[in-house]
Amino acid sequence: MSRFFSDKFAALAPYVPGEQPQDMQYVKLNTNESPFPPSDKALRQAAESTRAMNLYSDPDCRALREKLADFYGFSADEVIVTNGSDEVLNFAFMAFCDAAHPVAFPAISYGFYPVFAAVNGVAYEEIPLRADFSVNADDYCGIGKTIVIANPNAPTGLLLPVSEIERIVASNPDNVVVVDEAYVDFGGESSLQLVHKYDNILVTQTYSKSRSMAGARLGFGIGSRELIQDLNNIRNSTNPYNVNSATLALGAAVLDDEDYTRRNCATIMENRAYTTAALRGMGFEVLESCANFIFARTPKMDGGELYRRLKERGVLVRHFTRAEIADFNRITIGTREQMDILLNTIKSILEAA
Amino acid sequence: MSRFFSDKFAALAPYVPGEQPQDMQYVKLNTNESPFPPSDKALRQAAESTRAMNLYSDPDCRALREKLADFYGFSADEVIVTNGSDEVLNFAFMAFCDAAHPVAFPAISYGFYPVFAAVNGVAYEEIPLRADFSVNADDYCGIGKTIVIANPNAPTGLLLPVSEIERIVASNPDNVVVVDEAYVDFGGESSLQLVHKYDNILVTQTYSKSRSMAGARLGFGIGSRELIQDLNNIRNSTNPYNVNSATLALGAAVLDDEDYTRRNCATIMENRAYTTAALRGMGFEVLESCANFIFARTPKMDGGELYRRLKERGVLVRHFTRAEIADFNRITIGTREQMDILLNTIKSILEAA
Repeated sequence: MSRFFSDKFAALAPYVPGEQPQDMQYVKLNTNESPFPPSDKALRQAAESTRAMNLYSDPDCRALREKLADFYGFSADEVIVTNGSDEVLNFAFMAFCDAAHPVAFPAISYGFYPVFAAVNGVAYEEIPLRADFSVNADDYCGIGKTIVIANPNAPTGLLLPVSEIERIVASNPDNVVVVDEAYVDFGGESSLQLVHKYDNILVTQTYSKSRSMAGARLGFGIGSRELIQDLNNIRNSTNPYNVNSATLALGAAVLDDEDYTRRNCATIMENRAYTTAALRGMGFEVLESCANFIFARTPKMDGGELYRRLKERGVLVRHFTRAEIADFNRITIGTREQMDILLNTIKSILEAA
Repeated sequence: MSRFFSDKFAALAPYVPGEQPQDMQYVKLNTNESPFPPSDKALRQAAESTRAMNLYSDPDCRALREKLADFYGFSADEVIVTNGSDEVLNFAFMAFCDAAHPVAFPAISYGFYPVFAAVNGVAYEEIPLRADFSVNADDYCGIGKTIVIANPNAPTGLLLPVSEIERIVASNPDNVVVVDEAYVDFGGESSLQLVHKYDNILVTQTYSKSRSMAGARLGFGIGSRELIQDLNNIRNSTNPYNVNSATLALGAAVLDDEDYTRRNCATIMENRAYTTAALRGMGFEVLESCANFIFARTPKMDGGELYRRLKERGVLVRHFTRAEIADFNRITIGTREQMDILLNTIKSILEAA
């Protein structure tokens, strides 16, 4: 830290992304990326955008917003697009949280939420999960705070039904409820259906997972015109050209190849069922995931130990040291071949133990 | 504004980017883009990066940071790369400005500085320019505030010698001085040479202008390890994957085709001299620009009126309504053909007036 760094950030502990080691080629199952490349049809359609890269991208992101609006049944002014969904989440923390509006989120969830709260100087409450690691909607009803819920939740993969989200939204009419649906395309039900019914819900999604575009950095938020206008005020006060032109073009083109996205999601869901069954067959407890990852533990080995032994053998998964979940590892669902390597490696580790 | 928007932003007036009208094809000289496409060699070299777009971009931006460090004579941990230079500027306002460290910048400069100050809740002082629109370094010496200076300045194009920047940096040892060098490659002298001499200078640059990559969104900052670490703490607390993988690859590849960049900058400087001389020949006052734009006024017509008549005729320039500079228009330097269209159009407007 330099002697010039503002005191307000003195205690800031930045988010730590999943490791991206360069020392060897891993079977990479640690950051919930898609194992499939982006749509080739879309890549070809968007390729010409690079020729005009000397010009600024459209700061209104108009074409993509209209496309997303059509796709999901909204109007363009109910949509904001951002540099990954981390950016729209940070904007929501900026816009809708302050001393009068502290924020609450599940104690076990996306590890970035407490960091967003801290960097924005906002008090936050971490609400414990149930013993089965599910979110109890009752804990959020009528609490009068800004609320952020990942649904499906990470790293558990567990889904809250939309009816439960609705109870939370309806019972906190004077606070914004952000539903982070980064993983909704793998069998979840979207709360987008609530946006025209309530003015206090913001739904965020990402192209990083189901649409194979983690490296392109594209997320979006959908909510009432007024909420979106607030987020755009933040965007235009920090980085109006936040999404580059190639990503804007690719994001629109990918929506024209939705069959490819659906097929990939179906494959991931098949591989998730396959891997879940196989791990359970080996004595693992595996939470019932609706996401492109599973959260699993075995009574035979400490979670950190299993993570390390897998890494030594070239398989990278994600381990969290927080006590309540230190038994577990979060394993991204990849191709069938990657899953077989994972399963065989786990088998040999446990046999050798 | 929604009823949920934090009171702290109630008075926030977002930055207004130069217009990007879609109603007709303009000769676009309003947002200081390069008229030349990005290096074709670099585009081809970087093209394969889109294949792996399903994977996250490197949150450390290691390869590009090393490349930039080599290019400019620094080490990688003295470099941060960001989603356009607007992002590194906002990070600097976040990191180095607060109640104890208010910020000062020229009253006529990049219009985003007061917005960055406002969105971060920081008090700011706008220091008037001299009557000839130049920055007076004396006004900044020993003021004990965080200082932001665009050099060359925008929209004037005027350059402050590095010796003058050094006086400002040396006389404010307990405050950070940010030198925004977005336009330095068009004949300016860089303050990067001061970075190893002072721990309180941050130099920011962009690929948007000289490197023809405005649509790719890539900026960077160079300063002491400690300053860069502070900025990375902010980056990792808001959006660690801030630069997409195609832009990272293109940004590195473009540095391998520096001849192309230098040739384009030389052409812009030639066209700047040509346009400046032609406008002066028509009775315009044109400030002595070191940037890829000129700032010009004519006693024959109000600046807003000239802007409107040019736009009607398909030539887009940038007019600022602020009283001190309302006589002027800021005109991006494009190709010789674009400059001839501009000059002929101005001629016919003035003749018809």
